[in-house]
Parts: sequence; C-alpha cells; structure tokens
Amino acid sequence: MTSEFELIQRYFKRRTLHTDLDGGDDAALISLWPGSQLVVSTDMLVEGTHFLPGTDARDLGWKTLAVNVSDLAAMAAEPRWALLAMALPEADEDWLEAFSEGVYECAAAFGVDLAGGDTTRGPRTLCVTIMGEVPHGRAVTRAGARPGDEVWISGQPGRAALGLAHLRGTLRLPDTLRDACIAAQQRPQPRVALGLALRDVATAMLDVSDGLLGDLAHLLDQSGVGACIVENALPVQHLANGGVDPATLRQAVLAGGDDYELLFTAPREAREQIASLSDRLALPLHCIGHILPAGSGLQLQTTDGRPVPTACAGYDHFR
Amino acid sequence: MTSEFELIQRYFKRRTLHTDLDGGDDAALISLWPGSQLVVSTDMLVEGTHFLPGTDARDLGWKTLAVNVSDLAAMAAEPRWALLAMALPEADEDWLEAFSEGVYECAAAFGVDLAGGDTTRGPRTLCVTIMGEVPHGRAVTRAGARPGDEVWISGQPGRAALGLAHLRGTLRLPDTLRDACIAAQQRPQPRVALGLALRDVATAMLDVSDGLLGDLAHLLDQSGVGACIVENALPVQHLANGGVDPATLRQAVLAGGDDYELLFTAPREAREQIASLSDRLALPLHCIGHILPAGSGLQLQTTDGRPVPTACAGYDHFR
Repeated sequence: MTSEFELIQRYFKRRTLHTDLDGGDDAALISLWPGSQLVVSTDMLVEGTHFLPGTDARDLGWKTLAVNVSDLAAMAAEPRWALLAMALPEADEDWLEAFSEGVYECAAAFGVDLAGGDTTRGPRTLCVTIMGEVPHGRAVTRAGARPGDEVWISGQPGRAALGLAHLRGTLRLPDTLRDACIAAQQRPQPRVALGLALRDVATAMLDVSDGLLGDLAHLLDQSGVGACIVENALPVQHLANGGVDPATLRQAVLAGGDDYELLFTAPREAREQIASLSDRLALPLHCIGHILPAGSGLQLQTTDGRPVPTACAGYDHFR
Repeated sequence: MTSEFELIQRYFKRRTLHTDLDGGDDAALISLWPGSQLVVSTDMLVEGTHFLPGTDARDLGWKTLAVNVSDLAAMAAEPRWALLAMALPEADEDWLEAFSEGVYECAAAFGVDLAGGDTTRGPRTLCVTIMGEVPHGRAVTRAGARPGDEVWISGQPGRAALGLAHLRGTLRLPDTLRDACIAAQQRPQPRVALGLALRDVATAMLDVSDGLLGDLAHLLDQSGVGACIVENALPVQHLANGGVDPATLRQAVLAGGDDYELLFTAPREAREQIASLSDRLALPLHCIGHILPAGSGLQLQTTDGRPVPTACAGYDHFR
C-alpha cells in the first residue's frame, strides 16, 4: 500500500459502536461472547499490483490465503474461517482447479474453513476475509511496545525479496539459497504457532509484509515509541554463504517485503522464554534491537557503531 | 453472476469443519457461542460489471454496503459489522469523500460498524464482507420451502430495472414513476426489519438481486420443490399509472434485478400474521403464488389461466 493510499483510510475512520479495535492494526477485534473475541481482517490482491500475470495458480492460491492467515497470527489469534471473493477475466477451469488446490492446501495446513465466497467477471482480483478467535484481552496489537523492550524478528527475513529478484532476473542466487528464497516468495509460511505462543510474552506484534524497517515504523507509530536496530544483530549470516554481496543481503533483510515473518517486542526478562520457544518450534528468533522512548525515531546502529536515522540509511532498494 | 461463474463455485465447495452452513445461501452460518450464530457474507462489485463508470460516488457507497446488508436481512439476521476492501485507479479525494459519505449513511441507517478494510491501487473494485448475528437455529435459509407454502414478495419489485432502463435511455418513465424507480436503482433499501420479523414465520427466504423468477429458481433448487406464480397476483398495478405498456411492466416485475426485495415462503396459516406485519412496517407484502411438490418446476399461471413453464415465458428482457 502506498502512503497515498494510506491517506485514503482516513475517510473510513469514523467511530464504531460495537467493535473493540478497528483499523490501524492487522485485524479488527469484536467481542461477541464472554471470554473470547472475534478477530477479522480483509485483504485485496490485484493482478499487476500484488502478483504478476502468469503467476502459478496453485502458488497464488496458497499465498492469497496465507497472507491473511498471517494477519491473524500477528494478533496471536487462531485462524478459523475465510471468505474468498474473486473477479476473474474468464472462467478458465485449469486455472481455477490449480488455484483452488492451493487455497485448500493452505486452508488444511492451518485448519481454516472456506465458509463462503463470491465470483464475478472482472480484472483478476482476489479478496479474502479471514476470521479467527482469541481469548478476551489476549490479542497482541501493534500498540503495546514500551521503552526497554527488545525487538525480535522470526525466521529469515529477506528471502522472499531475494527470491523475487532472482525470478525477475535482477539478481542471480547461488544454488544454496535459490530454492528456499523462491519458496519464501511463492509459499510464505504464516507463523501461527509462534503467534499463539507469544500471547502472554510479546508486548506488540505485526507481520512483515512491506519490509522490516517499514513495518517496524508502523508498530512504533501505534505504540508511540522509538527504536534502535543493531545491524550486527541482523540475521544475515545464513544468507551470506553464496556470494551475494553483503550490502544487498542487508537491504533484503531490512527492506525486503513478503516474508510474513513476525516482528515483535518483549521485555528483556522474556529472553529465556523466547529462546526455549525458538527451540520448541524449531524456528530461529532473533533479537535485533530495543525500544526507545517517544521522540527517538527509528535508528539504525551501523556495523561501525554509529547510530544513524534510517531515513538516511537508504534501505529502499526492494520497495 | 453468470451461470458460467456459478460453475466456478463448485471448485470451492469442499467440506467445512466448523461452519454450520457454507455457500449456496445468502450468507454462511457459524456457531461461536451458545445461543447465537454469526452470519457472514462477502460480495465483490466491479466497475463495468456491477456499476457503470461515472456512477455517483455517494450513491455507490450506499449501494455497496446496502446490497450486503440485504444478504443478512434475507437470513433474518441482524447486521452488525462490515469490512470494506477497495481497489481504486487513483486516490481521488473528492470521489473518496462522497463514496465514504454514502457508505456511512447506509451504515448509520442499519446500525452497522465499519470495522476494518484495505485499500490498494487497481481497476475500481469494491468488496464488502458483512457480519451479523442470529439466535441459534432461527436463521431463515433458502432450503425450507414446503409444498403448500405460499410465495411472497415484499415492496415493489421491478422499479430498479425500470429506473436503470430510464437512466440508460431505453425507456422513458412518466413523472409519476421516475423518481421512485431511480431511487430504487441507486439507493436500494434492504428489508432488515422485515427479515427480522419473519424469523419464525418464513420457511425459506432470499433477497432478489437477479430478478424474481431467477432468484425464486435458486430457492426452489435449494428447497427441492417447485412453484406456481400467478401473473394476476403480481404487484403491477402501482406501476401501471403512467403509460408504460403492461408487458414491459410484467417483465420488470418478474425479471428485473437490483430491487433487493425479500422473496419468502410461508404456510397458508401465516397469512393474517403477514398482513399485520405489512401494516406494522408500512410495507406492502404480496402473495404471488404457491409451492408445488418436487419435480413440478417453476410454472407461471398466465392472465388467461394457462400454466406455462417459465422457460417458455421469455422473461429475460432485463437480464
């Protein structure tokens, strides 16, 4: 979403009557019955904007649902139901069969029911609404980060951007990285188990769809705090064994989108708990910085120890 | 939706795990907490397919939400929350202000919260997901019509199609009809109060978006019954005071879409109850035929008393 389009959302920010949390987060929260909240989110994917014409239909089916599942993971919610509305230029049965296979693969992987939908003729556009549940008051929003909290990122951010660059031919990935990076781009794995496990650990959380620094800025904005990210702490080493230059790798990790890793904050005392969670889930979790007081902005401590405002660090290669 | 596109939905009809009613009806039903069900539906509107380029943005905003509210009315559910996802070709502030005004007018009229959304760049496409509530087991689906039940239609079907024909210049409406018909086309009034009042009265129900006969066929299909519609009983008389020829009026009533009136079935014994409901809501309710056993098809009893299969009656002028 461009900032121009973020402005648009201002027209749809009037007060709600029976909604606990509306807009501005990964999903809305609704209290329907004692003890639990409904968590809902909607996402529209347009051919040419969010995916290229000719994208493999099965991969596209997986990804269309997966990016919505990820929104619920980012709220520490359990995804349960999805609705799929589609505009399609023609009723191409081969495409539909492959696309629906991909959707159902993802639905089965995360226990999501496809509860309904709509299909119509038009430029290829996919709109998923996902619904899930969370115990009342235990959703993790973007707004809870406090100064002193540590900033964490799951898995291996940057792979999806490297995979996309390889597919577009702007970068040639070595064999050791290629498959994993392309898979990250085409078959993102929403971190549902991690999100659920972080319910009483994380103070704020979101999923990284637009790039680590850009999405972190949203979290800081909602929490009213700043942060310092330490370049030396970034998970670059696993990408660094194939001859891609280090600057490109750092760019991919900090600014590459589409990985759907979880970015979260937690108090320093939670370190051991997070380490054992990483072991249990067999998922690397990296502490990459810490939260600063309001007004500090988003700083990057470079490898030579200097803190620089990220606005000056030029991490926009993959945007 | 064309029949070609109805076929598409077959690819998305796999068994669900925690959904009470999925697909095939106006909305899906989900049991979340004892005593109540969540009712959810999604609809995608594409410029050029569902609305013309240049449609007044405020009217379009109203209608975009109203047609979804109508889906919940047709289930005898109370609409509560909506999510709005949009693709827009550009961030036109004037258009957005007017469009959002229309959306919020409809939201306020029916007590609906706009709980979230998404905006992106693309061919103008609007996707609303609506959610509401119904006491457990009291939703009215399309599947409950029984032989002997009477067939009812609310309000004045046909006006929206006449209004559209007038706007397109293919028909010239007299002053006595023009405003009401154009309003029916541009500002449809979902029959929420009627839907709620019919909870324990109607045996089957849907809202008429594609035309009375076409939508009745869906209801008969889901209920596994036939029906006979009596031409003399159709509410044509209020349209017949302005010089439009009777055949065109009958066409509009039987095959015109976009009115969002409720079409429902009820046992004969409910007649008085429905009449007093009509008085209370100040909304005409017309008994236009009756349900026949399975295998009878959809018959039309013409003004000269002959029953003819509707397939031979040629009511497709407005499709």
